[in-house]
Amino acid sequence: MILPRTGIGVDVHAFAPLDAPRPLWLAGLLWDGERGLSGHSDGDAVAHAAADALFSAAGVGDLGTHFGTDRPEFAGASGVSLLIEAARIVRDAGFDIGNVAVQLVGNRPKFAPRRAEAEAVLTIAAGAPVSVSATTTDGLGFTGKGEGIAAVATAVVVRVGDGTRPTAG
Amino acid sequence: MILPRTGIGVDVHAFAPLDAPRPLWLAGLLWDGERGLSGHSDGDAVAHAAADALFSAAGVGDLGTHFGTDRPEFAGASGVSLLIEAARIVRDAGFDIGNVAVQLVGNRPKFAPRRAEAEAVLTIAAGAPVSVSATTTDGLGFTGKGEGIAAVATAVVVRVGDGTRPTAG
Amino acid sequence: MILPRTGIGVDVHAFAPLDAPRPLWLAGLLWDGERGLSGHSDGDAVAHAAADALFSAAGVGDLGTHFGTDRPEFAGASGVSLLIEAARIVRDAGFDIGNVAVQLVGNRPKFAPRRAEAEAVLTIAAGAPVSVSATTTDGLGFTGKGEGIAAVATAVVVRVGDGTRPTAG
Repeated sequence: MILPRTGIGVDVHAFAPLDAPRPLWLAGLLWDGERGLSGHSDGDAVAHAAADALFSAAGVGDLGTHFGTDRPEFAGASGVSLLIEAARIVRDAGFDIGNVAVQLVGNRPKFAPRRAEAEAVLTIAAGAPVSVSATTTDGLGFTGKGEGIAAVATAVVVRVGDGTRPTAG
Repeated sequence: MILPRTGIGVDVHAFAPLDAPRPLWLAGLLWDGERGLSGHSDGDAVAHAAADALFSAAGVGDLGTHFGTDRPEFAGASGVSLLIEAARIVRDAGFDIGNVAVQLVGNRPKFAPRRAEAEAVLTIAAGAPVSVSATTTDGLGFTGKGEGIAAVATAVVVRVGDGTRPTAG
Repeated sequence: MILPRTGIGVDVHAFAPLDAPRPLWLAGLLWDGERGLSGHSDGDAVAHAAADALFSAAGVGDLGTHFGTDRPEFAGASGVSLLIEAARIVRDAGFDIGNVAVQLVGNRPKFAPRRAEAEAVLTIAAGAPVSVSATTTDGLGFTGKGEGIAAVATAVVVRVGDGTRPTAG
Protein backbone atom coordinates (compact mmCIF):
# COMPACT_ATOMS: atom_id res chain seq x y z
CA MET A 1 0.00 0.00 0.00
CA ILE A 2 1.35 3.38 -0.98
CA LEU A 3 0.43 6.08 1.52
CA PRO A 4 -0.69 9.44 0.23
CA ARG A 5 1.27 12.45 1.42
CA THR A 6 -0.17 15.60 2.89
CA GLY A 7 1.13 19.15 2.67
CA ILE A 8 0.52 22.55 4.20
CA GLY A 9 0.59 26.07 2.82
CA VAL A 10 0.03 29.44 4.47
CA ASP A 11 0.05 32.73 2.61
CA VAL A 12 -0.54 36.27 3.84
CA HIS A 13 -0.89 39.53 1.95
CA ALA A 14 -1.52 43.02 3.27
CA PHE A 15 -4.15 45.18 1.67
CA ALA A 16 -2.59 47.73 -0.67
CA PRO A 17 -2.21 51.30 0.64
CA LEU A 18 -5.21 53.49 -0.12
CA ASP A 19 -3.00 55.93 -2.03
CA ALA A 20 -1.72 53.13 -4.28
CA PRO A 21 -4.86 51.20 -5.13
CA ARG A 22 -4.72 47.86 -6.90
CA PRO A 23 -7.39 45.53 -8.21
CA LEU A 24 -8.26 42.60 -5.94
CA TRP A 25 -7.38 39.22 -7.37
CA LEU A 26 -8.31 36.42 -5.01
CA ALA A 27 -9.00 32.72 -5.49
CA GLY A 28 -8.44 33.17 -9.20
CA LEU A 29 -11.13 35.83 -9.53
CA LEU A 30 -11.17 39.58 -10.04
CA TRP A 31 -13.27 41.30 -7.37
CA ASP A 32 -14.63 44.58 -8.71
CA GLY A 33 -14.79 47.44 -6.26
CA GLU A 34 -12.75 45.65 -3.59
CA ARG A 35 -9.46 46.89 -2.18
CA GLY A 36 -6.55 44.96 -3.65
CA LEU A 37 -3.69 43.16 -1.95
CA SER A 38 -0.05 44.18 -2.03
CA GLY A 39 2.79 42.06 -3.33
CA HIS A 40 5.13 41.73 -6.28
CA SER A 41 2.62 39.22 -7.63
CA ASP A 42 -1.12 39.74 -7.86
CA GLY A 43 -1.34 38.97 -4.14
CA ASP A 44 -3.73 36.05 -4.63
CA ALA A 45 -3.17 34.44 -1.24
CA VAL A 46 -5.65 31.63 -1.91
CA ALA A 47 -3.93 30.49 -5.10
CA HIS A 48 -0.50 30.92 -3.49
CA ALA A 49 -1.42 28.85 -0.43
CA ALA A 50 -2.81 26.14 -2.72
CA ALA A 51 0.43 26.04 -4.73
CA ASP A 52 2.54 25.93 -1.58
CA ALA A 53 0.46 23.08 -0.15
CA LEU A 54 1.11 21.07 -3.31
CA PHE A 55 4.84 21.75 -3.18
CA SER A 56 4.85 20.89 0.53
CA ALA A 57 3.04 17.59 0.01
CA ALA A 58 5.42 16.54 -2.75
CA GLY A 59 8.46 17.79 -0.85
CA VAL A 60 9.71 19.89 -3.72
CA GLY A 61 10.28 23.24 -2.02
CA ASP A 62 8.00 26.23 -2.07
CA LEU A 63 6.95 29.30 -4.05
CA GLY A 64 10.34 30.91 -3.52
CA THR A 65 12.13 27.82 -4.83
CA HIS A 66 10.17 27.72 -8.06
CA PHE A 67 9.15 31.26 -8.77
CA GLY A 68 12.10 33.17 -7.40
CA THR A 69 14.39 35.58 -9.18
CA ASP A 70 15.91 32.87 -11.34
CA ARG A 71 12.65 32.47 -13.24
CA PRO A 72 11.88 36.05 -14.32
CA GLU A 73 9.11 34.80 -16.61
CA PHE A 74 6.99 34.38 -13.46
CA ALA A 75 7.55 37.90 -12.13
CA GLY A 76 4.10 39.41 -11.72
CA ALA A 77 2.40 36.18 -12.76
CA SER A 78 -1.18 35.63 -11.68
CA GLY A 79 -1.95 33.29 -8.84
CA VAL A 80 -3.76 31.00 -11.24
CA SER A 81 -0.68 30.83 -13.47
CA LEU A 82 1.44 29.86 -10.48
CA LEU A 83 -1.03 27.16 -9.45
CA ILE A 84 -1.07 25.71 -12.97
CA GLU A 85 2.72 25.60 -12.99
CA ALA A 86 2.90 24.22 -9.44
CA ALA A 87 0.59 21.34 -10.38
CA ARG A 88 2.74 20.62 -13.44
CA ILE A 89 5.94 20.60 -11.34
CA VAL A 90 4.40 18.26 -8.77
CA ARG A 91 3.19 15.85 -11.45
CA ASP A 92 6.56 15.95 -13.20
CA ALA A 93 8.15 15.03 -9.88
CA GLY A 94 6.14 11.80 -9.99
CA PHE A 95 3.02 12.59 -8.00
CA ASP A 96 -0.67 12.54 -8.69
CA ILE A 97 -2.79 15.16 -6.96
CA GLY A 98 -5.71 14.05 -4.84
CA ASN A 99 -7.17 17.37 -3.78
CA VAL A 100 -6.37 20.79 -2.42
CA ALA A 101 -8.43 22.50 0.28
CA VAL A 102 -7.98 26.18 1.07
CA GLN A 103 -9.54 28.37 3.71
CA LEU A 104 -9.58 32.13 3.30
CA VAL A 105 -9.26 33.99 6.60
CA GLY A 106 -10.32 37.62 6.50
CA ASN A 107 -13.09 40.17 6.66
CA ARG A 108 -13.21 40.99 2.96
CA PRO A 109 -14.29 40.22 0.31
CA LYS A 110 -17.59 38.52 1.11
CA PHE A 111 -16.66 35.17 -0.33
CA ALA A 112 -19.72 32.93 -0.27
CA PRO A 113 -21.52 34.31 -3.34
CA ARG A 114 -18.56 33.46 -5.57
CA ARG A 115 -17.29 30.28 -3.92
CA ALA A 116 -18.45 27.93 -6.67
CA GLU A 117 -16.93 30.17 -9.33
CA ALA A 118 -13.59 30.31 -7.50
CA GLU A 119 -13.54 26.55 -6.97
CA ALA A 120 -14.20 25.95 -10.66
CA VAL A 121 -11.31 28.19 -11.75
CA LEU A 122 -8.84 26.74 -9.26
CA THR A 123 -9.92 23.15 -9.92
CA ILE A 124 -9.20 23.61 -13.60
CA ALA A 125 -5.84 25.19 -12.75
CA ALA A 126 -4.77 22.35 -10.46
CA GLY A 127 -6.34 19.58 -12.51
CA ALA A 128 -7.75 18.19 -9.27
CA PRO A 129 -10.52 19.17 -6.87
CA VAL A 130 -9.84 22.46 -5.09
CA SER A 131 -12.26 23.50 -2.36
CA VAL A 132 -12.28 27.00 -0.90
CA SER A 133 -13.98 27.98 2.33
CA ALA A 134 -13.91 31.23 4.27
CA THR A 135 -13.94 32.46 7.83
CA THR A 136 -13.31 35.57 9.89
CA THR A 137 -11.42 36.02 13.15
CA ASP A 138 -13.92 37.84 15.35
CA GLY A 139 -12.05 41.15 15.07
CA LEU A 140 -8.77 39.67 16.32
CA GLY A 141 -5.31 39.80 14.78
CA PHE A 142 -4.32 41.43 11.51
CA THR A 143 -7.11 39.68 9.62
CA GLY A 144 -9.69 40.83 12.15
CA LYS A 145 -8.45 44.41 11.99
CA GLY A 146 -8.69 44.37 8.21
CA GLU A 147 -4.96 44.87 7.62
CA GLY A 148 -4.70 41.91 5.31
CA ILE A 149 -5.85 38.40 4.62
CA ALA A 150 -4.45 34.94 5.20
CA ALA A 151 -5.09 31.67 3.44
CA VAL A 152 -4.31 28.22 4.81
CA ALA A 153 -4.24 25.19 2.54
CA THR A 154 -3.69 21.49 2.72
CA ALA A 155 -3.27 19.01 -0.11
CA VAL A 156 -2.98 15.31 -0.78
CA VAL A 157 -0.63 13.85 -3.36
CA VAL A 158 0.50 10.30 -3.98
CA ARG A 159 3.62 9.01 -5.64
CA VAL A 160 2.60 7.20 -8.79
CA GLY A 161 4.04 3.72 -8.75
CA ASP A 162 4.41 0.90 -11.27
CA GLY A 163 1.86 2.08 -13.76
CA THR A 164 -1.16 1.98 -11.48
CA ARG A 165 -2.14 5.60 -11.52
CA PRO A 166 -4.62 6.34 -8.75
CA THR A 167 -7.91 8.07 -9.30
CA ALA A 168 -8.63 11.35 -7.60
CA GLY A 169 -11.27 10.69 -4.92
CA MET B 1 -7.23 3.38 -6.06
CA ILE B 2 -9.41 6.12 -4.60
CA LEU B 3 -7.40 8.83 -2.92
CA PRO B 4 -8.63 10.25 0.35
CA ARG B 5 -9.19 13.98 0.50
CA THR B 6 -7.89 16.33 3.11
CA GLY B 7 -9.45 19.52 4.44
CA ILE B 8 -8.56 22.48 6.62
CA GLY B 9 -10.53 24.52 9.13
CA VAL B 10 -9.55 27.53 11.21
CA ASP B 11 -11.82 29.16 13.76
CA VAL B 12 -11.24 32.10 16.09
CA HIS B 13 -13.35 33.51 18.90
CA ALA B 14 -12.65 36.43 21.19
CA PHE B 15 -13.20 36.09 24.89
CA ALA B 16 -16.47 37.68 25.97
CA PRO B 17 -16.28 41.12 27.60
CA LEU B 18 -15.91 40.98 31.36
CA ASP B 19 -19.12 43.00 31.79
CA ALA B 20 -21.08 40.50 29.70
CA PRO B 21 -19.87 37.15 31.01
CA ARG B 22 -20.74 33.91 29.27
CA PRO B 23 -20.06 30.28 30.11
CA LEU B 24 -17.11 28.72 28.31
CA TRP B 25 -18.04 25.94 25.92
CA LEU B 26 -15.00 24.47 24.22
CA ALA B 27 -14.30 21.15 22.54
CA GLY B 28 -17.80 20.06 23.41
CA LEU B 29 -17.34 20.62 27.13
CA LEU B 30 -18.53 23.19 29.64
CA TRP B 31 -15.62 24.68 31.55
CA ASP B 32 -16.77 25.88 34.95
CA GLY B 33 -15.23 29.08 36.20
CA GLU B 34 -13.57 29.93 32.89
CA ARG B 35 -14.22 33.07 30.88
CA GLY B 36 -16.48 32.34 27.93
CA LEU B 37 -16.07 33.12 24.26
CA SER B 38 -18.12 35.58 22.25
CA GLY B 39 -20.15 34.74 19.20
CA HIS B 40 -23.71 34.25 18.04
CA SER B 41 -23.12 30.56 18.67
CA ASP B 42 -21.61 29.07 21.81
CA GLY B 43 -18.19 30.10 20.51
CA ASP B 44 -16.83 26.54 20.54
CA ALA B 45 -13.87 27.15 18.22
CA VAL B 46 -12.66 23.55 18.45
CA ALA B 47 -15.97 22.07 17.32
CA HIS B 48 -16.35 24.76 14.65
CA ALA B 49 -12.88 24.17 13.22
CA ALA B 50 -13.59 20.43 13.14
CA ALA B 51 -16.83 20.97 11.24
CA ASP B 52 -15.16 23.34 8.80
CA ALA B 53 -12.35 20.86 8.15
CA LEU B 54 -14.93 18.21 7.25
CA PHE B 55 -16.77 20.57 4.90
CA SER B 56 -13.45 21.62 3.37
CA ALA B 57 -12.32 18.04 2.76
CA ALA B 58 -15.61 17.13 1.11
CA GLY B 59 -15.73 20.38 -0.84
CA VAL B 60 -19.22 21.25 0.32
CA GLY B 61 -18.74 24.80 1.55
CA ASP B 62 -18.30 25.94 5.10
CA LEU B 63 -20.10 26.84 8.32
CA GLY B 64 -21.64 29.90 6.70
CA THR B 65 -22.98 27.83 3.81
CA HIS B 66 -24.75 25.35 6.03
CA PHE B 67 -25.61 27.19 9.20
CA GLY B 68 -26.31 30.63 7.86
CA THR B 69 -29.41 32.72 8.16
CA ASP B 70 -31.43 30.42 5.93
CA ARG B 71 -31.36 27.73 8.59
CA PRO B 72 -32.65 29.56 11.66
CA GLU B 73 -32.96 26.28 13.54
CA PHE B 74 -29.18 26.38 13.99
CA ALA B 75 -29.05 29.88 15.43
CA GLY B 76 -27.33 29.57 18.80
CA ALA B 77 -26.74 25.85 18.28
CA SER B 78 -23.97 24.23 20.29
CA GLY B 79 -20.68 23.41 18.62
CA VAL B 80 -21.36 19.72 19.15
CA SER B 81 -24.72 20.03 17.38
CA LEU B 82 -23.01 21.69 14.43
CA LEU B 83 -20.37 18.96 14.27
CA ILE B 84 -23.03 16.24 14.32
CA GLU B 85 -24.86 17.97 11.48
CA ALA B 86 -21.65 18.62 9.54
CA ALA B 87 -20.74 14.94 9.67
CA ARG B 88 -24.22 14.03 8.45
CA ILE B 89 -23.99 16.50 5.56
CA VAL B 90 -20.57 15.18 4.52
CA ARG B 91 -21.76 11.57 4.62
CA ASP B 92 -24.91 12.47 2.69
CA ALA B 93 -22.67 14.05 0.06
CA GLY B 94 -21.11 10.63 -0.46
CA PHE B 95 -18.08 10.62 1.78
CA ASP B 96 -16.86 8.50 4.63
CA ILE B 97 -14.91 10.26 7.37
CA GLY B 98 -11.44 9.00 8.25
CA ASN B 99 -10.53 11.27 11.10
CA VAL B 100 -10.49 14.84 12.31
CA ALA B 101 -7.54 16.38 14.17
CA VAL B 102 -7.86 19.72 15.93
CA GLN B 103 -5.33 21.84 17.76
CA LEU B 104 -6.44 24.44 20.26
CA VAL B 105 -4.19 27.50 20.32
CA GLY B 106 -4.51 29.69 23.39
CA ASN B 107 -3.57 30.33 26.99
CA ARG B 108 -6.81 29.21 28.58
CA PRO B 109 -8.36 26.90 29.59
CA LYS B 110 -5.73 24.42 30.72
CA PHE B 111 -6.71 21.69 28.32
CA ALA B 112 -4.70 18.57 29.15
CA PRO B 113 -6.74 17.34 32.15
CA ARG B 114 -9.90 17.10 30.01
CA ARG B 115 -8.43 16.08 26.67
CA ALA B 116 -9.71 12.50 26.78
CA GLU B 117 -13.18 13.69 27.76
CA ALA B 118 -13.27 16.22 24.92
CA GLU B 119 -12.06 13.68 22.39
CA ALA B 120 -14.76 11.21 23.47
CA VAL B 121 -17.54 13.77 23.05
CA LEU B 122 -16.33 15.01 19.67
CA THR B 123 -15.61 11.49 18.38
CA ILE B 124 -19.19 10.50 19.12
CA ALA B 125 -20.42 13.66 17.43
CA ALA B 126 -18.41 13.11 14.25
CA GLY B 127 -18.81 9.34 14.21
CA ALA B 128 -15.08 9.10 13.51
CA PRO B 129 -11.91 9.62 15.53
CA VAL B 130 -11.42 13.23 16.61
CA SER B 131 -8.14 14.11 18.31
CA VAL B 132 -7.62 17.38 20.13
CA SER B 133 -4.26 18.78 21.14
CA ALA B 134 -3.32 22.15 22.61
CA THR B 135 -0.54 24.68 22.46
CA THR B 136 0.25 28.27 23.41
CA THR B 137 1.99 30.99 21.45
CA ASP B 138 4.69 32.17 23.83
CA GLY B 139 2.86 35.41 24.61
CA LEU B 140 2.63 36.44 20.95
CA GLY B 141 -0.38 37.48 18.90
CA PHE B 142 -3.97 37.68 20.06
CA THR B 143 -3.86 34.18 21.51
CA GLY B 144 -0.69 34.96 23.45
CA LYS B 145 -2.19 38.17 24.82
CA GLY B 146 -5.27 36.29 25.98
CA GLU B 147 -7.68 38.18 23.73
CA GLY B 148 -9.15 35.02 22.28
CA ILE B 149 -8.44 31.52 21.11
CA ALA B 150 -7.90 29.86 17.78
CA ALA B 151 -8.41 26.30 16.64
CA VAL B 152 -6.90 24.70 13.55
CA ALA B 153 -8.23 21.43 12.20
CA THR B 154 -7.57 19.01 9.42
CA ALA B 155 -9.66 16.06 8.32
CA VAL B 156 -9.60 13.10 5.96
CA VAL B 157 -12.62 11.95 4.02
CA VAL B 158 -12.97 9.56 1.13
CA ARG B 159 -15.62 9.32 -1.53
CA VAL B 160 -17.42 6.04 -1.12
CA GLY B 161 -17.38 4.18 -4.42
CA ASP B 162 -19.04 1.10 -5.84
CA GLY B 163 -20.17 -0.42 -2.60
CA THR B 164 -16.75 -0.86 -1.03
CA ARG B 165 -17.10 1.35 1.99
CA PRO B 166 -13.72 2.00 3.56
CA THR B 167 -13.00 1.49 7.21
CA ALA B 168 -11.84 4.39 9.34
CA GLY B 169 -8.18 3.76 10.17
CA MET C 1 -9.56 -0.26 2.98
CA ILE C 2 -7.84 1.40 5.91
CA LEU C 3 -7.94 5.17 5.70
CA PRO C 4 -4.85 7.12 6.63
CA ARG C 5 -5.22 9.73 9.34
CA THR C 6 -4.10 13.30 9.17
CA GLY C 7 -2.89 15.56 11.96
CA ILE C 8 -2.09 19.20 12.59
CA GLY C 9 0.56 20.95 14.64
CA VAL C 10 1.22 24.63 15.27
CA ASP C 11 4.14 25.94 17.27
CA VAL C 12 5.21 29.48 18.06
CA HIS C 13 8.32 30.84 19.75
CA ALA C 14 9.30 34.40 20.47
CA PHE C 15 12.80 35.58 19.67
CA ALA C 16 14.96 35.70 22.78
CA PRO C 17 15.52 39.13 24.37
CA LEU C 18 18.58 40.92 23.00
CA ASP C 19 20.06 41.11 26.50
CA ALA C 20 19.77 37.32 26.92
CA PRO C 21 21.00 35.99 23.59
CA ARG C 22 20.61 32.33 22.68
CA PRO C 23 21.77 30.33 19.69
CA LEU C 24 19.13 29.73 17.02
CA TRP C 25 18.15 26.11 16.61
CA LEU C 26 15.54 25.68 13.91
CA ALA C 27 14.46 22.76 11.76
CA GLY C 28 17.12 20.65 13.40
CA LEU C 29 19.95 23.00 12.43
CA LEU C 30 22.12 25.52 14.25
CA TRP C 31 22.01 28.90 12.55
CA ASP C 32 25.20 30.80 13.25
CA GLY C 33 24.85 34.52 13.77
CA GLU C 34 21.05 34.43 13.98
CA ARG C 35 19.00 35.56 16.94
CA GLY C 36 17.76 32.58 18.93
CA LEU C 37 14.27 31.68 20.09
CA SER C 38 13.04 31.64 23.65
CA GLY C 39 11.60 28.65 25.44
CA HIS C 40 12.45 26.06 28.05
CA SER C 41 13.48 23.85 25.15
CA ASP C 42 15.72 24.89 22.26
CA GLY C 43 12.75 26.69 20.73
CA ASP C 44 12.87 24.69 17.51
CA ALA C 45 9.34 25.48 16.34
CA VAL C 46 9.70 23.46 13.13
CA ALA C 47 10.66 20.25 14.92
CA HIS C 48 8.02 20.86 17.60
CA ALA C 49 5.24 21.42 15.06
CA ALA C 50 6.30 18.25 13.24
CA ALA C 51 6.15 16.23 16.47
CA ASP C 52 2.76 17.69 17.39
CA ALA C 53 1.37 16.88 13.94
CA LEU C 54 2.41 13.25 14.41
CA PHE C 55 0.82 13.07 17.86
CA SER C 56 -2.31 14.74 16.48
CA ALA C 57 -2.62 12.31 13.58
CA ALA C 58 -2.25 9.30 15.85
CA GLY C 59 -4.52 10.79 18.50
CA VAL C 60 -2.02 10.32 21.28
CA GLY C 61 -1.95 13.77 22.85
CA ASP C 62 0.62 16.48 22.28
CA LEU C 63 4.04 17.75 23.33
CA GLY C 64 2.76 18.58 26.79
CA THR C 65 1.39 15.07 27.25
CA HIS C 66 4.65 13.37 26.41
CA PHE C 67 7.38 15.80 27.35
CA GLY C 68 5.85 17.49 30.37
CA THR C 69 7.15 17.67 33.87
CA ASP C 70 6.71 13.96 34.48
CA ARG C 71 9.50 13.19 32.06
CA PRO C 72 12.36 15.36 33.33
CA GLU C 73 14.80 13.59 31.03
CA PHE C 74 13.33 15.67 28.18
CA ALA C 75 13.75 19.03 29.91
CA GLY C 76 15.85 21.14 27.58
CA ALA C 77 15.91 18.41 24.93
CA SER C 78 16.59 19.42 21.35
CA GLY C 79 13.76 19.61 18.86
CA VAL C 80 15.32 16.76 16.91
CA SER C 81 15.38 14.58 20.04
CA LEU C 82 11.71 15.29 20.61
CA LEU C 83 10.85 14.43 17.02
CA ILE C 84 12.75 11.13 17.24
CA GLU C 85 10.87 10.26 20.41
CA ALA C 86 7.53 11.39 18.98
CA ALA C 87 7.97 9.13 15.97
CA ARG C 88 8.82 6.23 18.27
CA ILE C 89 5.73 6.86 20.42
CA VAL C 90 3.46 7.03 17.36
CA ARG C 91 4.87 3.80 15.95
CA ASP C 92 4.57 2.07 19.32
CA ALA C 93 0.92 3.13 19.37
CA GLY C 94 0.43 1.08 16.21
CA PHE C 95 0.87 3.56 13.39
CA ASP C 96 3.16 3.84 10.42
CA ILE C 97 4.16 7.35 9.38
CA GLY C 98 3.51 8.45 5.82
CA ASN C 99 5.02 11.91 5.82
CA VAL C 100 5.26 15.16 7.70
CA ALA C 101 5.09 18.56 6.02
CA VAL C 102 6.05 21.72 7.88
CA GLN C 103 5.92 25.36 6.86
CA LEU C 104 8.04 27.92 8.64
CA VAL C 105 6.34 31.32 8.90
CA GLY C 106 8.65 34.21 9.68
CA ASN C 107 11.10 36.80 8.46
CA ARG C 108 14.27 35.13 9.72
CA PRO C 109 16.36 33.12 9.14
CA LYS C 110 16.56 33.03 5.36
CA PHE C 111 15.57 29.43 4.99
CA ALA C 112 15.97 28.42 1.35
CA PRO C 113 19.75 27.91 1.29
CA ARG C 114 19.52 25.24 4.00
CA ARG C 115 16.20 23.63 3.16
CA ALA C 116 17.67 20.39 1.84
CA GLU C 117 19.92 20.08 4.87
CA ALA C 118 17.02 20.63 7.27
CA GLU C 119 14.82 18.14 5.46
CA ALA C 120 17.57 15.51 5.60
CA VAL C 121 18.04 15.91 9.36
CA LEU C 122 14.31 15.86 10.14
CA THR C 123 13.60 12.97 7.75
CA ILE C 124 16.17 10.86 9.56
CA ALA C 125 14.68 11.88 12.90
CA ALA C 126 11.12 10.96 11.91
CA GLY C 127 12.06 7.92 9.86
CA ALA C 128 9.70 9.21 7.16
CA PRO C 129 9.77 12.02 4.62
CA VAL C 130 9.69 15.47 6.24
CA SER C 131 9.37 18.46 3.93
CA VAL C 132 9.97 22.00 5.12
CA SER C 133 8.91 25.12 3.26
CA ALA C 134 8.99 28.76 4.30
CA THR C 135 6.98 31.93 3.89
CA THR C 136 6.66 35.42 5.30
CA THR C 137 3.56 37.40 6.26
CA ASP C 138 4.04 40.66 4.40
CA GLY C 139 4.92 42.59 7.56
CA LEU C 140 1.70 41.58 9.34
CA GLY C 141 1.20 39.97 12.72
CA PHE C 142 3.89 38.94 15.18
CA THR C 143 5.79 37.03 12.53
CA GLY C 144 5.75 40.02 10.18
CA LYS C 145 6.96 42.35 12.93
CA GLY C 146 9.83 40.01 13.70
CA GLU C 147 8.68 39.24 17.24
CA GLY C 148 8.84 35.50 16.72
CA ILE C 149 8.24 32.68 14.32
CA ALA C 150 5.49 30.16 13.77
CA ALA C 151 5.52 26.73 12.22
CA VAL C 152 2.51 24.84 10.93
CA ALA C 153 2.69 21.13 10.20
CA THR C 154 0.53 18.35 8.93
CA ALA C 155 1.21 14.63 8.90
CA VAL C 156 -0.21 11.37 7.63
CA VAL C 157 -0.15 8.18 9.64
CA VAL C 158 -1.94 4.88 9.16
CA ARG C 159 -2.86 2.23 11.64
CA VAL C 160 -0.94 -0.91 10.80
CA GLY C 161 -3.36 -3.78 10.43
CA ASP C 162 -3.07 -7.55 10.13
CA GLY C 163 0.58 -7.66 9.21
CA THR C 164 0.38 -5.69 5.99
CA ARG C 165 2.62 -2.80 6.81
CA PRO C 166 2.16 0.01 4.31
CA THR C 167 5.01 1.65 2.47
CA ALA C 168 5.66 5.36 2.86
CA GLY C 169 4.65 7.00 -0.40
